[in-house]
Amino acid sequence: MWERLRDKRMADKIVTAEVAAGWIEDGMTIGLSGFTRAGDAKVVTLALAELAKKEHKPFGVNVYTGASLGSDVDAVMAEAGIIMKRLPFQADPVMRKKINDGSLMFVDQHLSHTAELIREGFMAPIDYAIVEAVAITEDGMIIPSTSVGNSNIFVEYAKHVIIELNLAQSPELEGVHDIYTPARQGERGPIPLTTVDQRIGTVGIPVDVEKIRGIVVTNQLDSPSTIVEPDEETAQIAAHLIEFLRQEVKQGRLTNSLAPLQSGIGSVANAVFNGFLESEFTDLTVFSEVLQDAVFDLLDAGKISFASGCSITLTADKMKQVMDNFSSYRDKLMLRPQEITNHPELIRRMGLISINTAIEADIYGNVNSTNVSGTKMMNGIGGSGDFARNSRLGIFVTKSIAKGGKVSSIVPFASHVDHTEHDVDIIVTEQGLADLRGLAPRERALKIIDNCAHPLYRDQLRAYYEEALTRGGHTPHVLEKAFSWHVRYAQEGTMLEQAPALV
Amino acid sequence: MWERLRDKRMADKIVTAEVAAGWIEDGMTIGLSGFTRAGDAKVVTLALAELAKKEHKPFGVNVYTGASLGSDVDAVMAEAGIIMKRLPFQADPVMRKKINDGSLMFVDQHLSHTAELIREGFMAPIDYAIVEAVAITEDGMIIPSTSVGNSNIFVEYAKHVIIELNLAQSPELEGVHDIYTPARQGERGPIPLTTVDQRIGTVGIPVDVEKIRGIVVTNQLDSPSTIVEPDEETAQIAAHLIEFLRQEVKQGRLTNSLAPLQSGIGSVANAVFNGFLESEFTDLTVFSEVLQDAVFDLLDAGKISFASGCSITLTADKMKQVMDNFSSYRDKLMLRPQEITNHPELIRRMGLISINTAIEADIYGNVNSTNVSGTKMMNGIGGSGDFARNSRLGIFVTKSIAKGGKVSSIVPFASHVDHTEHDVDIIVTEQGLADLRGLAPRERALKIIDNCAHPLYRDQLRAYYEEALTRGGHTPHVLEKAFSWHVRYAQEGTMLEQAPALV
Repeated sequence: MWERLRDKRMADKIVTAEVAAGWIEDGMTIGLSGFTRAGDAKVVTLALAELAKKEHKPFGVNVYTGASLGSDVDAVMAEAGIIMKRLPFQADPVMRKKINDGSLMFVDQHLSHTAELIREGFMAPIDYAIVEAVAITEDGMIIPSTSVGNSNIFVEYAKHVIIELNLAQSPELEGVHDIYTPARQGERGPIPLTTVDQRIGTVGIPVDVEKIRGIVVTNQLDSPSTIVEPDEETAQIAAHLIEFLRQEVKQGRLTNSLAPLQSGIGSVANAVFNGFLESEFTDLTVFSEVLQDAVFDLLDAGKISFASGCSITLTADKMKQVMDNFSSYRDKLMLRPQEITNHPELIRRMGLISINTAIEADIYGNVNSTNVSGTKMMNGIGGSGDFARNSRLGIFVTKSIAKGGKVSSIVPFASHVDHTEHDVDIIVTEQGLADLRGLAPRERALKIIDNCAHPLYRDQLRAYYEEALTRGGHTPHVLEKAFSWHVRYAQEGTMLEQAPALV
Repeated sequence: MWERLRDKRMADKIVTAEVAAGWIEDGMTIGLSGFTRAGDAKVVTLALAELAKKEHKPFGVNVYTGASLGSDVDAVMAEAGIIMKRLPFQADPVMRKKINDGSLMFVDQHLSHTAELIREGFMAPIDYAIVEAVAITEDGMIIPSTSVGNSNIFVEYAKHVIIELNLAQSPELEGVHDIYTPARQGERGPIPLTTVDQRIGTVGIPVDVEKIRGIVVTNQLDSPSTIVEPDEETAQIAAHLIEFLRQEVKQGRLTNSLAPLQSGIGSVANAVFNGFLESEFTDLTVFSEVLQDAVFDLLDAGKISFASGCSITLTADKMKQVMDNFSSYRDKLMLRPQEITNHPELIRRMGLISINTAIEADIYGNVNSTNVSGTKMMNGIGGSGDFARNSRLGIFVTKSIAKGGKVSSIVPFASHVDHTEHDVDIIVTEQGLADLRGLAPRERALKIIDNCAHPLYRDQLRAYYEEALTRGGHTPHVLEKAFSWHVRYAQEGTMLEQAPALV
C-alpha cells in the first residue's frame, strides 16, 4: 500500500469509511468523484447512508458528482432519503423514481457547466470532496482512477477532502491523466489544447495537504457497464452513418481519418462505434466523455490512434481484459476533467463529430434527450448539449420506434426540448439519415419524416404536417394537436391512431 | 474619392450598380455585408431587384448576410420574389410575411455558426460577395464601414467580390475594425483574445485583387434604428436587473466594473443599458454584437471604458452626433466579425453578462426568442444562443404581458424553444427577477410564477402547475393543456380564462 500512498505526511490520516462518514453533517454539500460508473467514491457514501439510517433522524446532503455513479451509491443514498439536491447527471432507477416523484431535487446540467457554477461561488460551498485515487504522490498530488469528472474542481473548492485509495484499481492508471483547470472567468487565457493527444496539465490533482482530512483504503472494482450487444437496428444506424461519412470524405469535407469523434454513453452509441471496425476509416481519434468497450476494440484493431476521455467505463469481461493489459493502452489514452473534455472552446476548435442518443426528435429537428413524455426524467442532458452545439457535425441517433411500435421516436412536437433545431445537424434512425444542415423548417420536416420515421408512423406524421401547413408559419404547427400523440400514448397505450374502419 | 480608393490597380473597376447587378445570375448565392441595419450593401441589391422585375422572368438567389439589413433591401428583394434562401437573420416585415407563408426559405442560425457552415463547404458556394467599404487601402485591403458581420468570410470564400464604396460613411471609421478569421476546424489554434480592447487581427479584410470584379461608389447613410424610448416597464426591468447585479457585487461574485456586457438589439435591451447611467457601476466594458444608442450615452458619461461590437446601429439623431464626432470615440471602440463577437470560446473565457429579449418563457425557464405562438417567425435567434449558453450570466428580459394583457409572456409551455432550461440563468420582467441558477424545475416554477408573471396570470399559472404536480415527473406538465393558452389566444383573442361566474 505504501507505494500507493507515497506522501508520508499522510500516514496518520488513514481512517475507516465509517469514521469518515461520521464527519459529514446534516445540510452539508459533498462533491464526489465518479463519471459513468467509473472512478466513483464507493465506500464513504455507502457508510454515510448506513449511518443516517441507523440514527433515525432527518438527515440530508447535497450531492454533486461528475456524472452517474456505480456501486449502487446513487440508489442507496436515494433509498435512504438523504439527498436534498443532486447534480449534474445520474442514471439510477431508484434515484430516477425519487426525482420524478419530486422528493429529490435534480439539477440537470451541461456537464461542462458545473465547474463554472462552483467557481462562481453561487451554490452552497462544498464541505467535503470525496474522491477515489489510485495513488497519492510524494508531494501530495492525488492520482485519480478510472475517471476525472469534476474531482479537480471539488478538491480545489472543498473545505475538506476525503480520499478513497482504491487498491483494486490498476496502478498503471498513474500517468494517463492530464489535469488542467481554467482560472475564473475573466482571469483566464486560452486553453492551449489543439490536438487530442496533447498534454496541457499535471498527472494528478494538486491539493493542499492540510485539506485532506482522511484517507480510506478500499479494494473494489468499478461497477461494470451493461451494454447491450449491437442488434439489427443499431447496426443499420451505424451503416447509415458510415455511408454518410463516406460521402463527406468523397465531397472533400473530411479525410479518411474523419475528425475527433465523440459518442454518448449507451448501447446505440457503442454500436455505432462498432460500425467503424469494418469501415475504411483509419487513424481515427477520439475526444469524448466516456471511453466504452468499442473504443478499446477500435484501439486493438489499430483503427483508433489516440483516445481522450473523462472516464473508462467497460463491461465486466472487457474491464478485465483492458485492466490486465493496461500498459499496452497507456500511451494511446488520456483522461481529463469533464470541463475540458466537454469545453465548447475545444469542441469547436477541433471540429468534433459528435454522436449522441435522442429519446425523441420532432419533425423540425428539435431533440428531447432527457424527459420521457416531456415530464419523466431519464438520466440527464449530460454532455450532449456541449457537443451538439459546438461540434462540426452534431449527430443524434435513435431507433425510430420504441415499446414494440407503440411509441414513435419521431413526433410532431418534441415533448421536451434539450437541443433546438439550431443545434441538430443530422438525425439517424435504422430507417435512414436526415442531413438537416442549411435547411429551413419546412425543408427539414419532409426529410425527417421520409428518411427517419418508421413506416408505421409516416402517414400520421405527414397528415399532421399537412394540417399544420394550412395554418402557415415558419414552423407550421397545429398547437392543439402538437402533443396529441403523447396524450394518446398516456391514455390508450399507443401513439398510433386507430384506423377509422376499426373504431 | 481617391483618398478612399487608394489601390490604383482598382481604378478601372468602378461600375454602376446596374452593371454590377447584371453580373448576378439566376440560382446564384450572394453574401452581403450588413448587420442590424449597419454597413449593409445598399445599392447593388436594389438594382438587382429592379432588374429582375424588369426582365419578367423567374429569377432567384440565395442571400446570406451578417444579420438584418437596412435600406429596405430585404423588403425590396422579398417583395420582388427573388430570394430563394435567406440566412442567418432578418428583421423586415415584408420578408417576415414571405417567410411565414412559406414562399421564402429562411434558415434561422446562431450568428456565430454561419462562418463555420461556409468554411465547411457544405452550402452552395458564394458566387458574389457584395460588401460596403469606407476605403480600399493601398495594398487592396477592404475597410468595412459600420459593421463587419460575415463580410470577411464572404470575401474569403466568394468567387467574385463587389465593393460598395460608401462616401457618406465617415472616413474616421478606418482603424476601428479588427479582422480575425479562424482557420478551418481542426487546423486552428486558440483565438488569442482575452480582453475586450485587444487587437488580434488586421484593420481591414485582406482580399485577392483578382477577385474584385467591380466597385460601385455610393453615398447613402445607414437606415437609422427606431428605438422606442424607455417606458415605465422597461425602466422597472432595468431597475430589477441593476439591483440584482448590486447584490452580486455585495456577495463578492462581481466587482463594480461587473463583467463584459452584451445586450441584444431592441428597445428593452437599450433601456436596460440606459439603466446603468444612473447606477454606481463604473469602468464598464462591452463585448456585444450591436452597439446601440445607450452604449454611446454610457461612453459619453464615462461609464463604459471600452466597447467591442460587430456593428454600430443608431437612431437618426444619435447617428449624426456620433458620426460627426467619431474621432472622440475611435480609441474606445472596436468592430469585429460576428464569428468573433459571438464566439463561444471568447464569451465563456471572459465570462460575459448577457442580456437578451424573450418573446415568452415557460414556468421551467425555457425561452422562445423567435416564433410567435410557436409558428410565426419574428426575426431569428440571432446571437442570443451564442451568448446565453456560454456567458457567466444568461439573462432574458421581457415585459410580462403583451397585447394589452391578452398575451402572457410567462406560459405553461414555451410554444417554441430556442433556449432550454439548461441555458437560462435569470428571467426579468417589470414584475421582478427570477434567479434560476442551481434550481431544479419544481423550484424554478414557483419562482418564475411569483416573481415574473403578471398578476393577471399568476393564478392561472399556479392552477396549471398544481394540476401538473398531480401527474408527477421531474418537469411536471399536463400535456393536453400545455398549449391551451396559445390555442385560446388564437380562438378567443386572449390567453385569459373566463372567470366561471361570467361564463
